[in-house]
Amino acid sequence: MKVIVCILSCISLISYGQNSFEKDSTFIRNIYNAALSDGDSHKNLESLCKDVGHRLTASKASYKAIEWGKALLESYNFDTVYLQEITVPHWERGSKEKAYFIHKTDTVYLSVLALGGSVGTDGMLSGEVIEYKSIDDLIGANPEDVKGKIVFINESMDPNNINTFRSYGGCYRQRAYGAKEAAKHGAIAVLTRSLSLKLDNYPHTGSMRYEEGVARIPAAAISTMGAVRLKSALMDGNVTMHLEMHCKWFEDTTSYNVIADINGKDDKIILVGGHLDSWDVGEGAHDDGAGIIHSIEALRLLKDLSYTPNHTIRCVLYMNEENGNYGGEQYADYAKENSLYHIAALESDRGGFSPRGFSLDGSDEQVAKLQSFEKLLSPYNLHKFQKGYGGVDIGPLKNGQVALIGLVPDSQRYFDHHHAQTDLFENVNKRELELGSAACASLLYLIDQHGID
Amino acid sequence: MKVIVCILSCISLISYGQNSFEKDSTFIRNIYNAALSDGDSHKNLESLCKDVGHRLTASKASYKAIEWGKALLESYNFDTVYLQEITVPHWERGSKEKAYFIHKTDTVYLSVLALGGSVGTDGMLSGEVIEYKSIDDLIGANPEDVKGKIVFINESMDPNNINTFRSYGGCYRQRAYGAKEAAKHGAIAVLTRSLSLKLDNYPHTGSMRYEEGVARIPAAAISTMGAVRLKSALMDGNVTMHLEMHCKWFEDTTSYNVIADINGKDDKIILVGGHLDSWDVGEGAHDDGAGIIHSIEALRLLKDLSYTPNHTIRCVLYMNEENGNYGGEQYADYAKENSLYHIAALESDRGGFSPRGFSLDGSDEQVAKLQSFEKLLSPYNLHKFQKGYGGVDIGPLKNGQVALIGLVPDSQRYFDHHHAQTDLFENVNKRELELGSAACASLLYLIDQHGID
Repeated sequence: MKVIVCILSCISLISYGQNSFEKDSTFIRNIYNAALSDGDSHKNLESLCKDVGHRLTASKASYKAIEWGKALLESYNFDTVYLQEITVPHWERGSKEKAYFIHKTDTVYLSVLALGGSVGTDGMLSGEVIEYKSIDDLIGANPEDVKGKIVFINESMDPNNINTFRSYGGCYRQRAYGAKEAAKHGAIAVLTRSLSLKLDNYPHTGSMRYEEGVARIPAAAISTMGAVRLKSALMDGNVTMHLEMHCKWFEDTTSYNVIADINGKDDKIILVGGHLDSWDVGEGAHDDGAGIIHSIEALRLLKDLSYTPNHTIRCVLYMNEENGNYGGEQYADYAKENSLYHIAALESDRGGFSPRGFSLDGSDEQVAKLQSFEKLLSPYNLHKFQKGYGGVDIGPLKNGQVALIGLVPDSQRYFDHHHAQTDLFENVNKRELELGSAACASLLYLIDQHGID
Repeated sequence: MKVIVCILSCISLISYGQNSFEKDSTFIRNIYNAALSDGDSHKNLESLCKDVGHRLTASKASYKAIEWGKALLESYNFDTVYLQEITVPHWERGSKEKAYFIHKTDTVYLSVLALGGSVGTDGMLSGEVIEYKSIDDLIGANPEDVKGKIVFINESMDPNNINTFRSYGGCYRQRAYGAKEAAKHGAIAVLTRSLSLKLDNYPHTGSMRYEEGVARIPAAAISTMGAVRLKSALMDGNVTMHLEMHCKWFEDTTSYNVIADINGKDDKIILVGGHLDSWDVGEGAHDDGAGIIHSIEALRLLKDLSYTPNHTIRCVLYMNEENGNYGGEQYADYAKENSLYHIAALESDRGGFSPRGFSLDGSDEQVAKLQSFEKLLSPYNLHKFQKGYGGVDIGPLKNGQVALIGLVPDSQRYFDHHHAQTDLFENVNKRELELGSAACASLLYLIDQHGID
């Protein structure tokens, strides 16, 4: 497989004319200069984070974010700016959660966040805690040991992976499925260790799912330091946890994806997007404020440089990636119903860190084409051009033809802030953010010029 | 040249046996696991930053840092730990500087830091400000315009370079030589714009030099926001600046480089180092606490994995990189006097950020050999293996034979903190730091196994 990709890549490279290379090289340099000298990335992210703030699907702020996105896109005079009406789920955290236990003579309060989608506790819920090192240990446990207790799944992210998303993938099941597995064993609630590689006192929320026919028990994340504290108390003997959560589900409701186009010479589409919704803590600065900014700025940069595209360059600010992906699904439905042809869809949803390259979910030929751009992009510290994941929002577009591409920034700091109170504007570096915008604009340009297979 | 390097690189690659590749690959994986799972990088940097703090050459803290380094290296039971006595310059900032001017009805105080090596003002010094956009504009100015005034050089770092060190190199002359050029034109003091790409209110100090026979006038840096403020006041009319600085030179004194060895089968040396001194603000966390930690941890990792080197693996914690490089010079003198043979010297002095690769100051053959390691190191996100700068401390070792190598971390955030109050432990990411230690250890191992030419 690798050899085929390599040979295809070489053929693509050779087929590149020298004139084309120089023209492309100059255009990309101009994109980066515009992004770094006089770009709007940083000020737009500041506005999204500070004027709108966090923006969970169906929250008041999510509608403000939609207005914000539409107004900003309109201010850049793209050819079309419009809203796609979609149906979305509606869950609310309610007032602040509480979790504490008595250890010796101390009352120990834990920093806690309900997982997105959890039911509340209906008043104070108390129970003895039983710890499992992993969700697999819980699955293999004797229900007699679990019955009537609060399960604590204390599975750490593996620090050895260089790509921290691999570590996340390796243990996210405790968050997604911990409640249903605990409930199957007769537990009354579940607490999971936050999915972070950092030892601190900020819990990280995120989506979880119940299973039809299995009891819906409350599920919450405690911080990594809280997990260490609870584990140490459990080593001294039994712990009774007191947990209070006020979260609630509501009827599905109406929301919107925000879409802007720069028209091309044909109707084929090259899409760039991120998700406008965020969790309801922090400011969603990296997740996915950065992706929203990258997408908007990529279009702005191309327009600013008076670029006339061959194909439609479309920016989609998706709603509801975090707890349902209804926006991604319904955009793909709309595309199918209207026979829209997407050449490629590029998603930025891995934070506003220094870009490392791109990963492509598609054919070997598409990967080879992506790799043929390396020589043009390596001067900008883009070195990774690999087969890999595209993104959640663009995923439903997958049809065996469209190239689904993910921007790959450096991943070391991502899970320090992911779904936590620290995902703030102040934790995004201006230049790193700008480089992501320029990387996206450059790839859109190259695909528009040279295709992607 | 590039073609030669490429061919040499291919030959090196082919000459690599498959067994050797697998052995190396496994050993490097073990280095990274040890650094990321159970490393000492982060806690050692915390200790250097919090227990010692900033540590300008000849300051009390610099001697504490020497004790700290020696004790830490001894605690790891390396084969030898010793101090090399050296002579160093001694400059002190004195009590806090002051700079202000009256604009309309406001008294505007500027955040200001004397440049390292500057004379004081001998009480309050006042003068009319004249602004130049660059040191070259000042050099070309009419002395009649400058005489008796305070020169303000307001040269911004170029945001367009992807490598921010290039932007630093492009305008550091305003800091290094601004005072002497201003004095030649009859100025009474010079203020320079801080060398930072970030707009904030933290001034960045750094070294400056006087010229024999030219008046020694006070020199200080103002923050980037201060530079904007001062420029805007100057657009309204004349500005009289009031400046007070208490810095002072003392006699040269005695200090030490700290050295530790893991003995090899022969006496040839592979050196890794950084500088133990820092400027006298912040905590010198990135500059060069990170390099000190990378160097110590690289040796610790090799020892921890029971590695028996072919050559002596030496760690040098240099004193006085910031204002003289006396440590680097005197280590090189000592090496020459004692006919020490250095195969390679690796320096980490570009911060504790996510590593990108290495730059090598040496022959094409050495660069090709470095590039032959790419396949082993690219899984760790190391992609840059280029001819380039080694480092200030190791520079004096240059003799046409030794390979001088610099660790190249991502440079986007470096100048946000360089020589400023924000160069703190809290601004270093644990994993990014650990990856630097592992990268250094891996390269030491590969050079020890395969040489570097």
